[in-house]
Amino acid sequence: METLSTNKAFDGIQGVYRHASSTTGTDMTFSVYVPAHEKGETLPVVWWLSGLTCTHANVTEKGEFRAACARHRLIFVAPDTSPRGDGVPDDPDAAYDLGLGAGFYVDATQDPWAAHYRMWSYVTQELPELLFAQFPADPKRQSIMGHSMGGHGALTIGLRHPERFKSVSAFAPIVAPSQVSWGQKALGQYLGPDPAPWRAHDAVALIEDGARLPELLVDQGDKDVFLEKELRPELLRQACADAGIPLTLNLQPGYDHSYYFVTTFMADHLAWHAERLR
Amino acid sequence: METLSTNKAFDGIQGVYRHASSTTGTDMTFSVYVPAHEKGETLPVVWWLSGLTCTHANVTEKGEFRAACARHRLIFVAPDTSPRGDGVPDDPDAAYDLGLGAGFYVDATQDPWAAHYRMWSYVTQELPELLFAQFPADPKRQSIMGHSMGGHGALTIGLRHPERFKSVSAFAPIVAPSQVSWGQKALGQYLGPDPAPWRAHDAVALIEDGARLPELLVDQGDKDVFLEKELRPELLRQACADAGIPLTLNLQPGYDHSYYFVTTFMADHLAWHAERLR
Repeated sequence: METLSTNKAFDGIQGVYRHASSTTGTDMTFSVYVPAHEKGETLPVVWWLSGLTCTHANVTEKGEFRAACARHRLIFVAPDTSPRGDGVPDDPDAAYDLGLGAGFYVDATQDPWAAHYRMWSYVTQELPELLFAQFPADPKRQSIMGHSMGGHGALTIGLRHPERFKSVSAFAPIVAPSQVSWGQKALGQYLGPDPAPWRAHDAVALIEDGARLPELLVDQGDKDVFLEKELRPELLRQACADAGIPLTLNLQPGYDHSYYFVTTFMADHLAWHAERLR
Repeated sequence: METLSTNKAFDGIQGVYRHASSTTGTDMTFSVYVPAHEKGETLPVVWWLSGLTCTHANVTEKGEFRAACARHRLIFVAPDTSPRGDGVPDDPDAAYDLGLGAGFYVDATQDPWAAHYRMWSYVTQELPELLFAQFPADPKRQSIMGHSMGGHGALTIGLRHPERFKSVSAFAPIVAPSQVSWGQKALGQYLGPDPAPWRAHDAVALIEDGARLPELLVDQGDKDVFLEKELRPELLRQACADAGIPLTLNLQPGYDHSYYFVTTFMADHLAWHAERLR
């Protein structure tokens, strides 16, 4: 693991790191914020999964999470959203919603994606192993959250690892990729045209198929241009209601899909996770 | 004035605007955050002046000021750092410390700069007139702050307008441009090789020449790579001591020159300004 940068912030250290990933077969870059702590002490971890087009850098620079992480003493980890580099295929039209910056947190099974696009295994296995080996992070106290495509990642990873995460939340998540065009395009390419295997990467389908969590927190702007076509939080509301999962879905008036929305409620989400990580 | 974008954030509106400036002879872009407020109400204003290489966007995206501005109900204005566009000269070597992104908050008197590089008049006259005409901002309640070259701008503009600003603060400011290489290069180009007119754009020289403020707040990281060569806060400390200006100079251990440093203390500075704007 190579350290690309460290900067002191809110009495802790914001770092950016790179390592050769055996999962993706590429170098991968990620960021970790570690609050001030005693020598030998371990801290709880919040995983942040980013949305389409993002790298680790978007939330690291614009996410306004460090003040709250310092206050609650939370480590904050932000992976990239896809493999990158020589030999990694991209969408032939370089569309923003497939290929680079659009890994959708799945292990692709289809050509040309299968060789490198293995973000599910990267985020759930390889990066956690690296994190707990290299940082003062407590594997018994983990939570996960994300934005948009990263909200999809947080929900699906959380639903499939209820034993691992104390809490799961999302900002403007894609809740039912099988039913919306972003998801149909990406899952169709990465997992193939048969929609059966998509269900393991669709939060609403996972809940329909029996996945359970003790509760969920979602914030969503009501002026989000992707609300009706791609995000459709009402599908999550219905699935949670049918399954008896307590969902707090805050429809925030006037807010859009941007980091201006995310930052407004970032401290609230981190406080909510911190309570559940105590 | 043209609205380039508006985003709801922390219950207020973060906007980015462009207008044809008669002062610089170019289009100029700036950002304004306006917290939630009653119709007809005016709010106090904090001016933010950015450092070398920045546009309005750096602090707007990375500055983490909106939570505190919403809490204290402060309008936050961020101008660009130079004119830009067709016909605006740049450093022949495209150096980061002269020309585009490096206006140094002076009205240039020398060719080829004099036609467009008039950031002093732009920031002290034209933009305030536009702001108070177009936004719910109270001209009787203004404060000013900035970072690095923008700290220089905030100190010099504040020292020369003690009647206008209730308070003046800076992060890692250039305090004595006449005595350091950044300033000698820029002021030499913009104002000419005779250092006499530089004194009106040098905070330490202004204080030596009799300018006074009731107090000053400065935060400075002690791991800032520009500390000893370009920033030299000890010169401001001495000038303030000699002049009897109460200076709070916080040397922050481990912090560098970046926005990771600035954001750590942004809320403290805004709370300090808010007290003085009440």
